[in-house]
Amino acid sequence: MDTNRTSKPHVSLLGLGAMGTALAKTWLAAGHPVTVWNRTAARAEPLAAEGARIAATAAEAAAAGRLVVTCLLDDASVGEALAAADLAGKDLVDLTTGDPEQARAREAWAHARGARFLSGGIMATPPMIGVPDSGGYVFYSGSEEVLAEHRETLAVPAGTTYAGTDAGAAALYDVALLSAMNGMSAGITHAFALVREAEMPLKDFAVLLTDWLTAIAPAGHGTAEQLESGVHDTNVASNLAMQVTANATLLRTAGQQGVDPVLIAPYLDLMARHVAEGHGDEDGTGMVDMLRR
Amino acid sequence: MDTNRTSKPHVSLLGLGAMGTALAKTWLAAGHPVTVWNRTAARAEPLAAEGARIAATAAEAAAAGRLVVTCLLDDASVGEALAAADLAGKDLVDLTTGDPEQARAREAWAHARGARFLSGGIMATPPMIGVPDSGGYVFYSGSEEVLAEHRETLAVPAGTTYAGTDAGAAALYDVALLSAMNGMSAGITHAFALVREAEMPLKDFAVLLTDWLTAIAPAGHGTAEQLESGVHDTNVASNLAMQVTANATLLRTAGQQGVDPVLIAPYLDLMARHVAEGHGDEDGTGMVDMLRR
Repeated sequence: MDTNRTSKPHVSLLGLGAMGTALAKTWLAAGHPVTVWNRTAARAEPLAAEGARIAATAAEAAAAGRLVVTCLLDDASVGEALAAADLAGKDLVDLTTGDPEQARAREAWAHARGARFLSGGIMATPPMIGVPDSGGYVFYSGSEEVLAEHRETLAVPAGTTYAGTDAGAAALYDVALLSAMNGMSAGITHAFALVREAEMPLKDFAVLLTDWLTAIAPAGHGTAEQLESGVHDTNVASNLAMQVTANATLLRTAGQQGVDPVLIAPYLDLMARHVAEGHGDEDGTGMVDMLRR
Repeated sequence: MDTNRTSKPHVSLLGLGAMGTALAKTWLAAGHPVTVWNRTAARAEPLAAEGARIAATAAEAAAAGRLVVTCLLDDASVGEALAAADLAGKDLVDLTTGDPEQARAREAWAHARGARFLSGGIMATPPMIGVPDSGGYVFYSGSEEVLAEHRETLAVPAGTTYAGTDAGAAALYDVALLSAMNGMSAGITHAFALVREAEMPLKDFAVLLTDWLTAIAPAGHGTAEQLESGVHDTNVASNLAMQVTANATLLRTAGQQGVDPVLIAPYLDLMARHVAEGHGDEDGTGMVDMLRR
């Protein structure tokens, strides 16, 4: 394997927040020539000591090579930063956080300027970047050719997972996982509020809570199977009618402990509505489509 | 080790729903003499073939031995079933689902009748009962002496975890874990609604979702540490101010996909309120106390 520094592809990187800085350091450490630009130039200077070339403008950074990676504050910042850049023949890989429609519009914008486009959604925190086996990865969607051509370079900071040809897919799956995380966090927050003043040391409760959530996290496999088959009432371990009965205990307990049930109540309400509509013998998979308007 | 059937402690079991039946079968299979009673007698009959003695009344079942286990529909059913029973000198282990205050009142009721009392909260589904390494267990609280004396018998169907002297503690920790599960389920439901019609097969998404939730499930350890120390702004990987910015993307994406954000909105709202109150540099642990009135 050729480890000669100059043989590795050049990366133009725009945006040096915590994530952009982590990306730049990882590519530099792996021997890639990197040209960086940041709106606030002071954030770029420390990277010069690690071998980065500092560009005075975003257009200059983009001109330095074929692969242009953006990791900016928001989608509007991408358009502003590259307004004066010549993107003809470039491969633009946009890792900026945004929603699916922004990614699709940014793809059209890039194509109109003669660039190929790949959208990315980063499933990692900055400390996970460049750490093998951190579990971090990036959803990519849009041009599969761009991903194939640059996969070795893009795989340096984190794993790569292709989410589909729709440029909005990377953002969609990123948001789906973050949304699921918020649900779990809401449940954890409510659980700690319940036991905050109880006998067991909170650290012991955290062990039980982690074991429990880890054991039930694979529930999504059954949800996927049922959504694909349309059959919601087979292999139901605890049906919704039984769960709704148990939910009354959950709400009474919250009241006894002085805990506002606001974080769990909407899901319990949805469950009760689904049972009232005749789905008491199913598990909760059918509730997925109740959310869709 | 003595495997003589009659050398194992006798169990009087009241209530033969799915859970009670699983408990009875497990004790019978392990060689315990078991006397069962159920309000609807037909549910008890099949157990006779497995060696159970069928009692005509709950009082008769309770009279058959010292250890009396109840696994009934609700707390009121326990009082009704045992209204005419002589409980003097008995050890009543109540596995009926209830809230903490019901467990405390049931303990006082048992004591007034001359029985010792142990409350249980079952963290398992019926198919997990009696299956070694299923991960299922029962929270017990109240009399630690009762648990110590009967631990070998009680450990036959599932693991035993002592939650404290407060008779309400078993119900409290049971409810806390179930509440956390509902939060996770709400997040999973929202996530599937987002990607329901997208390109990736739902089964592939389920793999990514499970890996993601499993990776972040241990977040509760940090929450416990911060709640115990009162310090909420150290080792913050992604602070609340950044998360609130990302939340706008989550809500826009839900809108674009036609998904009602009702299941995740309350947590996002609470996060925004905590940031507005000056906690933008913390992670979400401080929100635990916002729920407590």
